[in-house]
Amino acid sequence: MTNSVTVLGLGAMGTALARAFLAAGHPTTVWNRTPGRSPELDELGVRRATTVGDAVTSSRLVVVCLLDDDSVRTTLEPIASELAGRTLVNLTNGTPLQARRTADWAAQQGAEYLDGGIMAVPAMIGGPDGFVLYSGSPVAFERYEGDLAALARPQYVGGDAGLAALNDLALLSAMYGMFAGAVHALALTSTEKIPPTKFTNELLVPWLTAMLCSLPAMADELENGAEPGSAGSNLAMQAAGFGNLIDASTDQGVDPALLLPVRALLDRAVAEGHGDRDIAAAIPLLRKG
Amino acid sequence: MTNSVTVLGLGAMGTALARAFLAAGHPTTVWNRTPGRSPELDELGVRRATTVGDAVTSSRLVVVCLLDDDSVRTTLEPIASELAGRTLVNLTNGTPLQARRTADWAAQQGAEYLDGGIMAVPAMIGGPDGFVLYSGSPVAFERYEGDLAALARPQYVGGDAGLAALNDLALLSAMYGMFAGAVHALALTSTEKIPPTKFTNELLVPWLTAMLCSLPAMADELENGAEPGSAGSNLAMQAAGFGNLIDASTDQGVDPALLLPVRALLDRAVAEGHGDRDIAAAIPLLRKG
Repeated sequence: MTNSVTVLGLGAMGTALARAFLAAGHPTTVWNRTPGRSPELDELGVRRATTVGDAVTSSRLVVVCLLDDDSVRTTLEPIASELAGRTLVNLTNGTPLQARRTADWAAQQGAEYLDGGIMAVPAMIGGPDGFVLYSGSPVAFERYEGDLAALARPQYVGGDAGLAALNDLALLSAMYGMFAGAVHALALTSTEKIPPTKFTNELLVPWLTAMLCSLPAMADELENGAEPGSAGSNLAMQAAGFGNLIDASTDQGVDPALLLPVRALLDRAVAEGHGDRDIAAAIPLLRKG
Repeated sequence: MTNSVTVLGLGAMGTALARAFLAAGHPTTVWNRTPGRSPELDELGVRRATTVGDAVTSSRLVVVCLLDDDSVRTTLEPIASELAGRTLVNLTNGTPLQARRTADWAAQQGAEYLDGGIMAVPAMIGGPDGFVLYSGSPVAFERYEGDLAALARPQYVGGDAGLAALNDLALLSAMYGMFAGAVHALALTSTEKIPPTKFTNELLVPWLTAMLCSLPAMADELENGAEPGSAGSNLAMQAAGFGNLIDASTDQGVDPALLLPVRALLDRAVAEGHGDRDIAAAIPLLRKG
């Protein structure tokens, strides 16, 4: 299970990926547009390719972690003829549409394709936390799952290459929502000199941990419909109480900008007749058409 | 520790409060503007007062849980002269300013005053989960903490009567942020028929649980300033990557409305020179002046 691997791109994340492969004993070839990047990899025995073509032909497993989707195309298109029979694992940030386009293109070159979404920051790569979502070729995933485990726990989410990016972006949205809520909460409490660490450790984290337990019920209601009278606190009550959040923020001199679209969504759900439902009823309202 | 208690207001929450006091053996008097509410309390031995004055003079401990701050004033002002020597515990939803106003008014009547923020839905009252924040008279809290524990774990947050409401609203903002993120995530994944419960149980909840661990670092940075180079993923990178979230949402036919103010805040933080900092740097930007 120590196949050779090539890593294209030595940004902070690509460097962390190469380091984790080297630490796990994989012969690792790297290429970066600007040469000489990440000198710390040299003492770990990295092989540096001077051209993309040289890098790609060094390994059957080629991991791509570039700036964006455009960089992926401009880097790979000139060496398309070298890809047949190899497996391309694209960990570049992108959208589901971009992933599907690259998957189609890779298939035309005779390559197996996996798209991935890294749910970790670079410092977590090679450690026990974090995970990487993969979608695309099931054959490629089965063949290389053991090698990819050197990076972070691999989690396969389906044969449609767009699914890793979709799940990745969904998880990132959820994270940003949680962070935005915490940012607003800390802005509010800081107006009264409440120590941020005390508030966070004693109240915020225990409270959000408890509230996380209501997400499975939200998902269940979306999947299976509402059980009558199941809403612990219905949307009409929540929308009515939301004014206090906005008023108190304004009273305290805190811009309620992060909360306003939440209020708009709750108000719309009530206006469209879902006042006796729980917040799950608001989910379909975000979908157009 | 089974002092008599009066509960003013028998909405869903007031009823749950009265039931919990009765279950813990407290002689409990209730009053509600509309009489005969919550008949299930009768078999638990509740005493029903026909006037607010009768209700208030039945107990030294008077718990108020009405619709809003206006209801509190119009209910209590006519019986102000009966309040001297009693303790008023106001669990009505409100803002810090409202709490301080009611505290001042109660002091003028010779009453001890506690303001409270209930961090629970009615079904959680009397159970092991949830808690109630209290602020105001430390003497009153010390005297009645044991009685109030019948409702949910009491947590005292300071002598300034506005602090319970402020902490309560901060925690609610954080909860709504997390829920908004989850709503967007479930809207996104539902566009590709990813089962909501599978996504939530296998990915969303574990991911948010892991991301909760970064909140203490955010609070520490707000309290003590940034350690150079400590940002795992700095604001410039986050702002640059945020476009993918918006684009993918639009591609999938999901309204990105809940995410837009987060992007605006990240962009503003970068524009104001905080691109190398972590998200904690955005918190002061929400404060005006």
